[in-house]
Order: sequence, then C-alpha cells, then structure tokens
Amino acid sequence: MSEKELSQEEIDILLAKAKKPSADAVKLHPYYMGKMQTVPKCSVWGFDAFAVWYTPGVAEACRQIADDPQKSFTMTNRANTIAVVSDGTRVLGLGDIGPAAGQPVMEGKALLFKYLGGVDAFALSIDTKDPDEIINFVKLLQPSVGGINLEDISKPKCYKILETLRKDPDIHIPVWHDDAQGTASVVAGGVIGAAHHVGKALDQLKVAMLGVGAANTRTAYVLESAGVPLKNIVMCDSKGIITKDRPDIIEQKDYDTFKYDLAQKTNAEGLSGDFGVATDGADVMISASKSAPDVVKKDWISKMASDSIVFACANPIPEIWPWDAKAAGARVVGTGRSDFDNQINNSLGFPGIFRGTLDVNATTITDEMCVAAAQAIADIAIKKGTTDKYVLPTMDEWELFPYEAAKVGMKAIEQGVARTIMEEDELFKMAEEKIKYARDLTKSLMDNNFIAPPI
Amino acid sequence: MSEKELSQEEIDILLAKAKKPSADAVKLHPYYMGKMQTVPKCSVWGFDAFAVWYTPGVAEACRQIADDPQKSFTMTNRANTIAVVSDGTRVLGLGDIGPAAGQPVMEGKALLFKYLGGVDAFALSIDTKDPDEIINFVKLLQPSVGGINLEDISKPKCYKILETLRKDPDIHIPVWHDDAQGTASVVAGGVIGAAHHVGKALDQLKVAMLGVGAANTRTAYVLESAGVPLKNIVMCDSKGIITKDRPDIIEQKDYDTFKYDLAQKTNAEGLSGDFGVATDGADVMISASKSAPDVVKKDWISKMASDSIVFACANPIPEIWPWDAKAAGARVVGTGRSDFDNQINNSLGFPGIFRGTLDVNATTITDEMCVAAAQAIADIAIKKGTTDKYVLPTMDEWELFPYEAAKVGMKAIEQGVARTIMEEDELFKMAEEKIKYARDLTKSLMDNNFIAPPI
Repeated sequence: MSEKELSQEEIDILLAKAKKPSADAVKLHPYYMGKMQTVPKCSVWGFDAFAVWYTPGVAEACRQIADDPQKSFTMTNRANTIAVVSDGTRVLGLGDIGPAAGQPVMEGKALLFKYLGGVDAFALSIDTKDPDEIINFVKLLQPSVGGINLEDISKPKCYKILETLRKDPDIHIPVWHDDAQGTASVVAGGVIGAAHHVGKALDQLKVAMLGVGAANTRTAYVLESAGVPLKNIVMCDSKGIITKDRPDIIEQKDYDTFKYDLAQKTNAEGLSGDFGVATDGADVMISASKSAPDVVKKDWISKMASDSIVFACANPIPEIWPWDAKAAGARVVGTGRSDFDNQINNSLGFPGIFRGTLDVNATTITDEMCVAAAQAIADIAIKKGTTDKYVLPTMDEWELFPYEAAKVGMKAIEQGVARTIMEEDELFKMAEEKIKYARDLTKSLMDNNFIAPPI
Repeated sequence: MSEKELSQEEIDILLAKAKKPSADAVKLHPYYMGKMQTVPKCSVWGFDAFAVWYTPGVAEACRQIADDPQKSFTMTNRANTIAVVSDGTRVLGLGDIGPAAGQPVMEGKALLFKYLGGVDAFALSIDTKDPDEIINFVKLLQPSVGGINLEDISKPKCYKILETLRKDPDIHIPVWHDDAQGTASVVAGGVIGAAHHVGKALDQLKVAMLGVGAANTRTAYVLESAGVPLKNIVMCDSKGIITKDRPDIIEQKDYDTFKYDLAQKTNAEGLSGDFGVATDGADVMISASKSAPDVVKKDWISKMASDSIVFACANPIPEIWPWDAKAAGARVVGTGRSDFDNQINNSLGFPGIFRGTLDVNATTITDEMCVAAAQAIADIAIKKGTTDKYVLPTMDEWELFPYEAAKVGMKAIEQGVARTIMEEDELFKMAEEKIKYARDLTKSLMDNNFIAPPI
C-alpha cells in the first residue's frame, strides 16, 4: 500500500485482486464438497478394536462417567470439542441469508479453529431465528462439547443469547460470541500495538468509534478493561453520536441495554453531532459499520490528532480506503482485509483463546481473558518491532497462537475460572503441541493425497 | 464355539475373554481422550487459502446456496454428514445413565460410521429427556446435516420421536433410529441368510420373538416387508405372549401404539402363555430382551422345529449361551457378541445403509430399503457359502458395505425417495471409493504417528 494517493490504475488492480477469492470460492467449494471431515483420533488396530471402542468394552467408560461426570472431559473428545452455532441471520456482509446458506462460513470457522488452534469444532447452522430456541439448543448441547462459539447472529438478540447463557448457573462451559468478544480482542490488540508504536498511553487515548453493533459494543468494554477509560470514547450510530439523553436510546433501553449503558458511560464531554465531531482531535478511529468506501470521510481523518490510528473494519470494503486515510494524514491504518497492511483479523483471536480456555478447562471466557489475548497479539508485533504497517501480527505468524493460549489460560487460572491448574510453560507447550499436530496432520493429508490439490 | 456342551473350564475362559474389552476400554479411553476428531477435507495450500475458505471468498458460496438451497449439499460437507443424537436414556445394557455418560457410545458410533461407511458423524448427546425437545433439536439441525441417526433413546418415546420426524413435511432428510431400524435390518439379514441355509421359505417361517421393544418391534415389520407374514410371528413381552385382547395392551394403545398394532396382526393362532408356548414348533427364535443367561430356556429350544434358528441378541450376555442352545438342538445360533459365531451386529447395517442413502441424497429410509440391506447382508454370506456358523458376514468383510450401499440406494431410487439418480455400478463405485478412503486415511494416520499405538 502506498503512503500517498494511488492512481486509478493502481486502485483498479487492487480491486480486481480482491475479486479473485470469490471466483476461486465458487469453483473450489463444490470441488471439495465440504471443508471439514471427521477422522479417528484413536487407534483402529484391528476389528477387535471395536469391542473396546464400541460394545461391549465402551460400557465401562460410560459407567465411569456416570459415576464422575467430570470424566466426560477425559473419556471422550469433549475437552477439545466446541460447537460453532449460528442461525444465519447476520452472515458476513450478506445479512439474513438463513442457516443453510451460512453453513460455508461455519465450516470455514471450523477449519480455522482446527488449523490455527488445534480445536475440533462441529459447524451447526440451525433452523430458527428465535433467541430462546437458540439458547435452548446450546443448553442441550452442553454434555457433548467443551465450549460454544456463537457466530453471525443478528443484534440485539445476540446480546440476549450470550448474556442469558453466560449467566445461567447450569452452564459450566464457556459460551462466546466471536463477532463481539472475538472482534473486540483483536481490535484491542491492534489498539495496544498501535498506541505502543506511536508512543501514546492507553489511559490518555481519545477514541472515536463508528457503529454501535455487537463488535464495537464489546470492543468498548474490552478497551476499558485494557485501560482506555470509557469516558474518553465517543461512539456514533447511524443517527449520530450517542449521548446520555438521546430519546431513542432511552426508549430502547430494555431492547438494546448495552447501547444505553455505553451512552451513559462514554462521551464524558457530552459531544453531539455526526462522526466528524467524534473524530475531531481523536487519537484512534475504529469503524465497524457499513461496507462501502467514504462512509468515513477523508476530511474527518485529516482533523484527528497527530500520529492518528485508523481501523476501518467493514468487510469486504472498508469504510475508507487505506490510501485515502493515509493521504488524509493517518499514521497507522488497518482494515479487515488480508491484502492490505495491519489486518484486523478475527482469526488472530478465537483459535488461541479457545486453545487456552479448553486446555485449562475454564468455565467461561472473561473480558480480562480477552485483554490477555489482546496484549498477547500486540506483544508478538512489539517483540518483532512495530512499524506503521505492522502493529499486529498476521495469522501466518503461528507462534502467536500457543503464546496467546498460554496467556489466556493463565488469566483464567488467576481469575479462578479454570478447572485444570498448570504452569505457563506447561500450558504453552501443550498448546504448541496441539497446534503443531493440526498443521502437520493437514500437511500429511495433502502430501499423501487424502486432500487433492486445488483445480 | 463347540457343537456340544462346554466344560466349566471352557466356559470360564470364554467369560474371562469377554471381560478384556472392558479393561482395555477404561485404560484406552483416557489415553486417547476421544475417538473422533475433525480435520480438513479441502486443501490449505497457503494462508491465502483462508481468503477462499473464509472471508471474503466464502461469501460467494453462501450467496449461491441462498439462491438455490439444494446447493448446500455441494458447497458444504452436508451431503456426507449426519448427526448421532441421543438423550442417554437407554445406553447399551446400562439404562438411563444420561447424555454425558452415553457420549463414549455416540463417539464410537461416529467412528464406525466413518471407518465402515465413510460417513462423517457429529456425536451429539443432549441434555433433555423430553421427546418434544429431542424432536425440536433434530429439526433445528436439519440445515447442517444430510441425515439423523437416533441412538439409545428409551421406548416408547423413541417411537414418537421417530414417527413425528418421519412424518413432518418440513423434514427432507432421513431420520433413523438405529436401535429399531438398524437392528431390524441386521436381524432380518440373519433370518434371510439362515432360512436360505436350512432350506426354508420365508413365507412359511414360524417365528417366536421375545421382547417387544424398539428392536423387535421394527424387526417384525421389516421381516413382514421381507416376506414373513406377521400372522406367523408370535411375540412375547414380560407378561407373556401378546394377543389381540390382552387388556393391558388395549389400555396402553395410545402410549405404545406399535405393540397394540402388532398384537392385532401377529399370532393368528391366538396362542397365549409364556415364551415356551411361542417357541414350541417355531423355526426361528429371536430374543431382544434381558441380558442374562437362561432367560431363554434350553427346554424351549429343544421343542422348536427341526433345523431351528436361534438369535439371542441381548448384550453383553445373550438370553441363552450359544453352547446351551446348540446342546438343546438349535442348528444355527447367533448372538450380539463378536467372540461367538453369527454375530447379529448393528455395524453390518447402518454404515452401508447411510452410505447408500446419502449417495442418492434420499429424503428418508423406508422399510423396503432396510429389506434391501438385509438381503445384501445375506447375499454376501450366501455367495461365499453359508454354514451353520456363517449365515451372515462379519464386519471385517468390508466388501459388504459398498454392495449394501448400492442396493439401498437403488431401492431408494426405485421408490422415488432419492434426489440423485444413478446406475447401480456408479453407486457401487462411489461407495467403494468413499469407504476405501476412510480406511486408508485411518491407516495413514496410524502409520504416520498422528494416532499413537495403544498402550
């Protein structure tokens, strides 16, 4: 990406390049007919193995769990299995396309969970839009899985689902909404890395956020846990800056409780108006809003503080093209795209976070565990040396994941939500082994032609 | 197994041998910590693969399914994926041990589905005993899977669940209860093979059945579809032979509708009394009853017709020891155990049946498809040459599964319940390839140490 404004020709090349994954996707999805499959984890040394793995031998494993339910985490794959659950109501930038149409995303997520985090995931796109049915579905699944990843569920029901399940005293496994907590962890990682790079303290940052959806809502709270005071954050929805006394927010208090809460706690200066007011003098701009160019104006960016940080997260088209943000004076620019610098990529979060969470058999994932993940993400870039174009790692820097897993697991232990206690180096080693296993296994499947090369 | 009565020493050796799988199971289950895992089915040629398998490229695959829902069978692994769903209320011989304790069985089932049938299965043990909740859970799963295998659910709710789902006009994938339809297919296969071996015609057979649970109930109907008139079957529950006018059966008509139906249609002679009355002069004895020796008396077997066929199916201990049945004059004896001859083993059924069902993308599995499977099972033994000790194949005769799959798939096409039409040889080849893939893949995982040898 150029530091200065690009020519139309250069822009056209970048845009054409961005279309290739779509063309490949429609060709390769039906070629492979699915992205994930199940295979044995145990030896099948002969046909008498089935007398151990199935009847009659298996009965004894069942009896032991019946006597001590915690043994379901050692007698089955539960400790390494999660479910990716979606109702398909808010799939990527596509909106409510339904569960069957959302399933390629959920399978893709399962692929990332395994390849980057060594976590086994069942992709379950379910045929309902009713939050109570989704809640009940997750509760029914509990005996079979070690955790739940909610995905692509529209707001505000996603809040109700997540909060209800997290507060349910009968749920003893972590329930996570990746579009909220996952995105928040990675955005916070980017903010921590970028603030370090430009030499600004977190507690002094002024942050302008466009969009008050699931992602930015949780990002605000995670940034607060990381040390950015909520009072220094100004958030803006489609009607303008959110304020304590905006009648529509007060009216919707019970429907969108987080927006109401944030309206009370953010924006201590009591600013009102459009997003240009919020960005004026801000150190950080984070947008998780409409996927279209010029949703964020160059003019607004040009009035930010010096050494400004701009994360335009909408996919596939960011709210401002990075070259425009740069031309307007931004120092650090990130987007959701892998073909631009500083990708704000959820895949930096959930695989390592779940790896660590499962390895310590945690009962939940706290905001503090998200901050530990964010710090771990930033640490990797800081250790290697940040630049304007590199304030957080990319997903092929795979040393991130075991490091992040260990940090998240240690935070769970510290907070008393872990059921398995370990030292950090043990935890790191365990995570590293499991992730390496997944990567080596994938390579072996390709090398031995169990996965054909792409056409 | 000896033709004559065994010595106590010989019996003790056989019983001790039967305990080894249990001892191995408690050692090996925590060693492997799970029997199945997820791995990629698609190439991960580099990190840019994730731009195709996940955002942004995947969106185009999603859009295509949104436009044409049938494409969820080609754009995802749905066409090869089923869910094994259980509430853990009737696990093996253990009874209602709950979903967490039943999960080792469901994982074992997923292992058999893949290894023998090339079918990917999610093992889902769910936290409810309520039939309506189980029904709803299955309905929610529909967009993600190509079929449902219900397992180890107590009766009579298992009937309600299965019948409700099969009759639901919004369910377009096969729903199957392996303890009913699966067992019925294999028992019927044994009966066909044995009747052929002893030279008796199916429509002349007199059959005595002990137990009117899910297994024997469906077995009676499948035998009828195979050509054994229901009027020639006499069934017996814990209170004795079931008859048209037994008050308890009439009273429970709405609760156990199948038992009522069978009481009307079987036992044309109007016999009553204990199971000894039913077996007197019968050609075939099938018990799916209490797991204990001498539930079926030697005296009863000795009064059966000449060339009698005895299938004592309770696990782990059959209702009569094979050596006792033989000593009492039975010619062909089968049990549920792999260490005795003529194992009546569900694993001969569901892997091949689901393989064929999924390959033709059938909307249901009819009783006639079960008969096609039963005939296929018998065919394998008949082609090789039956003996008293070999009237049906064992699960290591893996040529069975593609052959069975093709027969089942062709029956689905013939009955108009298939959405993909193929020739039998194509179907056979497809099934053979998928099953070989699963077996070769498992071997490769072991050879390359992704699965450690057992301790």
